[in-house]
Amino acid sequence: MSKIISLSEIKKILDTCSDSSLIQLIENGFVSYSNGEVLVAPVGHLPFTNPPGDLHIKYGYVKGKEYFVVKMASGFYENPSLGLSASNGLMLVFSQKTGELLSILLDEGHLTDIRTALAGAVVAKHLSPKNVSRIGIVGTGIQARLQLRYLKSVLNCRNVIVWGRSQEKMEAYASDSLLSDFNIATTRHIDELTATCNLIVTTTPSKNPLLLSSQVMEGTHITAVGADTPGKVEVDPALFERADIVVADSITQCIDHGDCASAIAAGTLDAKNIIELGTFITSGKKRSDDSSITIADLTGVAVQDINIAELVYGRAAGLT
Amino acid sequence: MSKIISLSEIKKILDTCSDSSLIQLIENGFVSYSNGEVLVAPVGHLPFTNPPGDLHIKYGYVKGKEYFVVKMASGFYENPSLGLSASNGLMLVFSQKTGELLSILLDEGHLTDIRTALAGAVVAKHLSPKNVSRIGIVGTGIQARLQLRYLKSVLNCRNVIVWGRSQEKMEAYASDSLLSDFNIATTRHIDELTATCNLIVTTTPSKNPLLLSSQVMEGTHITAVGADTPGKVEVDPALFERADIVVADSITQCIDHGDCASAIAAGTLDAKNIIELGTFITSGKKRSDDSSITIADLTGVAVQDINIAELVYGRAAGLT
Repeated sequence: MSKIISLSEIKKILDTCSDSSLIQLIENGFVSYSNGEVLVAPVGHLPFTNPPGDLHIKYGYVKGKEYFVVKMASGFYENPSLGLSASNGLMLVFSQKTGELLSILLDEGHLTDIRTALAGAVVAKHLSPKNVSRIGIVGTGIQARLQLRYLKSVLNCRNVIVWGRSQEKMEAYASDSLLSDFNIATTRHIDELTATCNLIVTTTPSKNPLLLSSQVMEGTHITAVGADTPGKVEVDPALFERADIVVADSITQCIDHGDCASAIAAGTLDAKNIIELGTFITSGKKRSDDSSITIADLTGVAVQDINIAELVYGRAAGLT
Repeated sequence: MSKIISLSEIKKILDTCSDSSLIQLIENGFVSYSNGEVLVAPVGHLPFTNPPGDLHIKYGYVKGKEYFVVKMASGFYENPSLGLSASNGLMLVFSQKTGELLSILLDEGHLTDIRTALAGAVVAKHLSPKNVSRIGIVGTGIQARLQLRYLKSVLNCRNVIVWGRSQEKMEAYASDSLLSDFNIATTRHIDELTATCNLIVTTTPSKNPLLLSSQVMEGTHITAVGADTPGKVEVDPALFERADIVVADSITQCIDHGDCASAIAAGTLDAKNIIELGTFITSGKKRSDDSSITIADLTGVAVQDINIAELVYGRAAGLT
């Protein structure tokens, strides 16, 4: 019988892990991915129209290891009106030696949320300006919260401004106990955020650019997390022309969808100038100076799911 | 909490269903698929090399219905040496309205085996010669058994000859209690099978044609089930030039892999001459006469998984 691990068990296991160990786990994943040690299948996608929704399937394995992982994550955007979370999902851990199902992680999308936020912390660890004046968060949802929560471990800055369309949601964000270590202001004007922040994380499902090139200060780093399917875009394609370094979690995926894809389509980015995150980390390259603009485009790579699912399964099974 | 349904519960539920109702369930699926009522995503594939294996992910939904289904099926061909089944897998049933996981069917590949065999019965129902002299089965594995088991409901013929490479496996096949209604001869010479059989089902993972055009009699129908990934082929491409009717469960899939793909590559089949199974069924077309050669290429379509998973979940949840 396969081991079934509930969301509450998963949360308990994650609570026993330090932030820095989780960030390192995801960092290691990006490095092994860019080193060609990971077999990642093309992302599977199933769209729904009535009601609107999406299912993504990400799967793969680190070659020569024990497991392979299949992750399903759904977004049904009208769920909140039914009192349900928009995001949902589960992860399956199988044996790479026999194909047997070893474990079902009923994480309801939580591990996807966590590993996505951890990728933002990995990026900030390697691409953040030395002195972050203020952190700008675009969006007020769960990912906007988790991104900030994990930035705590890699940045000293505790001053934050959050942009959203709803005053109520921004206030809920600012008073979230998860973020109580931060001093959080709110704004409905994105230029108020861009004028004071040199580290910006975008986390929305926007279909139009929110962050205009004309607004972004020199010396700013942007992590763009929201655009995970074709048609979504958060960062003005024109900003890519000003960028010194453009990093993508997966070049293959980011030239297919994500903000890089929009910039390539607009002619403001040449795909050959994108550096893959794992390659960037091992290269030892740094932001050249405080006037650099850098952009990291994160679309989510199966290796993040593989590594976090292995961790949770290993702990639950008493293997690690 | 999602409903978890074990293999033994699944088998009990299937036992309460008549063969004809199961065959009709899969037939209805092919018709709705060819009518454009089903959204089927491209098949996901993850290959393994050490040890060799495959994972296939099939998923989709019938538009406007309650559920969507994700099916994972693995084949790890060295498993039998470990005392494990080569095939394995599970199916997941989700709500099409909210994305919530409703049920996990721990079928270990059994439902895939069953729905694949049921497709063979659907084909025989519509394409079998009026008088079947003898049924030829190529292969001795689980699919070779289940194909014959479900042919019982749609054919009167009880005379069978099975071809295999191992005398031991052929004898195990011939004495399987599942097939006790049949009179089963064995042979290691495929021409002994082709000389007496006008209904042949091929069920092997062969990478070279087993059934040569020069051997096949006029008036024969062939159902080719084995070639489910690129590189596999059971039917001589030359036979397609002699065929009056070529049916595919999914034209998209069969021109990508399967025996049709091999014939197209060999120049012996024009893709536009393939009729999709669901279209063939509703067209009311018949084999033209007893001298026809007809071929059905089955690669397995997600709608089969969707329909059988819905049935099992509905029964288990007391919904139907």
